[in-house]
Amino acid sequence: MTNTSIVVPYEELHDFTLSVFQNMGCPPQDAVTAAAALLSADLRGIDSHGVARLSGYVRLQEAGRANPKPNVRVIHETPSTAVVDGDSGLGLVVAPYAMQIAIEKAAAVGTGWVSVQNSNHFGIAGYHALKAVQRDMIGIAMTNASALVAPTFSLERLLGTNPICVAVPAGEEPPFVADLATTTAANGKLEILQRKNEAAPLGWIQDKDGHPSTNAHELKSGGALLPLGGDRDHGSHKGYALGAVVDIFSAVLSGANYGPWVPPFPAYVPMPTGMPGKGIGHFFGAMRVDAFRPAADFKTHMDHWIRRFRSAKPVPGADRVLIPGDPEREMEHERRLHGIPLLPAVVEDLKNIAQKLGVESKLFENF
Amino acid sequence: MTNTSIVVPYEELHDFTLSVFQNMGCPPQDAVTAAAALLSADLRGIDSHGVARLSGYVRLQEAGRANPKPNVRVIHETPSTAVVDGDSGLGLVVAPYAMQIAIEKAAAVGTGWVSVQNSNHFGIAGYHALKAVQRDMIGIAMTNASALVAPTFSLERLLGTNPICVAVPAGEEPPFVADLATTTAANGKLEILQRKNEAAPLGWIQDKDGHPSTNAHELKSGGALLPLGGDRDHGSHKGYALGAVVDIFSAVLSGANYGPWVPPFPAYVPMPTGMPGKGIGHFFGAMRVDAFRPAADFKTHMDHWIRRFRSAKPVPGADRVLIPGDPEREMEHERRLHGIPLLPAVVEDLKNIAQKLGVESKLFENF
Repeated sequence: MTNTSIVVPYEELHDFTLSVFQNMGCPPQDAVTAAAALLSADLRGIDSHGVARLSGYVRLQEAGRANPKPNVRVIHETPSTAVVDGDSGLGLVVAPYAMQIAIEKAAAVGTGWVSVQNSNHFGIAGYHALKAVQRDMIGIAMTNASALVAPTFSLERLLGTNPICVAVPAGEEPPFVADLATTTAANGKLEILQRKNEAAPLGWIQDKDGHPSTNAHELKSGGALLPLGGDRDHGSHKGYALGAVVDIFSAVLSGANYGPWVPPFPAYVPMPTGMPGKGIGHFFGAMRVDAFRPAADFKTHMDHWIRRFRSAKPVPGADRVLIPGDPEREMEHERRLHGIPLLPAVVEDLKNIAQKLGVESKLFENF
Repeated sequence: MTNTSIVVPYEELHDFTLSVFQNMGCPPQDAVTAAAALLSADLRGIDSHGVARLSGYVRLQEAGRANPKPNVRVIHETPSTAVVDGDSGLGLVVAPYAMQIAIEKAAAVGTGWVSVQNSNHFGIAGYHALKAVQRDMIGIAMTNASALVAPTFSLERLLGTNPICVAVPAGEEPPFVADLATTTAANGKLEILQRKNEAAPLGWIQDKDGHPSTNAHELKSGGALLPLGGDRDHGSHKGYALGAVVDIFSAVLSGANYGPWVPPFPAYVPMPTGMPGKGIGHFFGAMRVDAFRPAADFKTHMDHWIRRFRSAKPVPGADRVLIPGDPEREMEHERRLHGIPLLPAVVEDLKNIAQKLGVESKLFENF
């Protein structure tokens, strides 16, 4: 099998994905919501979190770990906060619901903050945070995930890659979008090295005995990802602290599972024992910029900020200084125009889903 | 001159510091507020941000850059947000005022978020965030600072070390306190290496040409600190993004200066030209835990979280896995009992201040 990607138009991939969610039993509007959230990862170039995971969502539903018809609801609230129970639904559906509540609360009292229990994986944080930007709000999204990361000095994996996204509207400039796993490298980057059989830089992973390793396959034999910073001398205690904050905001505030008890994404991995909460947890925030200063002033200064940083003199060998969000936005522009590349293994995966769920699609006509 | 520290009781150092702020012209209550905030750094072992900086605050006031009698006030607000104008006051006074407003708003509507313009350096973020913990709230504090940090791929310094603190109450366990500069290493750690004439690890700094360097004195010849991550392969774009978020929340939201225009702490360094705002900026948040779930439930689970992480099996050569905040809390316990060590250079500095401001103190009796 070759590793050459097949490029498909976004619309065809979208129609296929929509049909899959419908055939999984999602109500029509939920299927639309889930397809848009999932495919935003493929559009933005975060291939590990997009359609490559579709079969994983199908298997979660087959295993009874994801509820296609959840009763997603607010179970506690104040004027600026809420806790949402996702009823074991797909995070791709639960997260947009929760983010919308954060936005509505921000519209009413300046800011809105929503912690979510009993959910599943929500795709990429950036998609959810950007919903707020459309309303002239700063958007914040984070989620915990099953434990792959060893805190500083720990032999055990206790945290997920726990991403944080902060999206900020600008005026004439595109929004600032910081979307980052709190590890040195996201798991998706390690998967790329695994496929290519290449070594990882030191500082990304440790082996099962807690020693630094460059073997990209180390996680399969008891190793762990390392927090942003990599080792203590380079600030890994900071990456650990940030990943811990995501875990606490997403799960200790909401009543979801935390630390080593977060349910795994692969449906064949047994659930942890002694789980202290429900499902996985997310946390969302929305802050109206005009709750602080007039939106036009904010945007003028945000443009000024962005232009100053973008025009910084680069170090030798670098083209330019990037603004967080630049690479993903440029990728989305490119892929909307020219299509989304799918690896052969992903195409096979999608064909299997199509057969299993009885989905017919133009997508496969050229394969 | 020897490098052996002189150890002084906290109370004597406090009385001296209080007198200094009073003699600088601070109103009595502001002097009390400022002394407690400043010395919390010495208690918690962050010596670079404590009394070692007192002469710097005095010089800011002498240079007319810090106003000892500021009219600190709210200039805009919604139920969950406010913007505070610090009127060029000491950040040590302005920040507690702003944090108190965040706490009051959280008491009223669940959360409170305050962005501050026209302030000066506020000491350590942890002190301010912990004020919320006393009220069963999660506390958040951040500040921008003058530009010492080069974003990923930038030759120019455009960001400060821009710390973030998140403090979370627990039940029987002490609070979780993540307090981190968004750089590989805080400037204070570099200063320690400078004093000892030791090399810095690769990943902390770059030289004036943008090349990685181990020379701890590099910042004095045009070099820069590096964002958490150190280089692109190790996620420095994430540290850059986090430092940028702190800058935007603290200054673009409030109307303070941002990026390369943040006023320097040393009063002899000229002010930047073309400043787009007022003073330096901070950002504070408070979230009532019972705005999400009953406080007792939250605390039980937070204790469970802390105990699980603290009992993790350590890697070979490490004693134990720490909870963010452990080292600083243990240091405070030790220093309240046995006193605070001052380097000879700091003692000289304090003597000079005492002479200049006419402060008499028991502190110097044993020197």
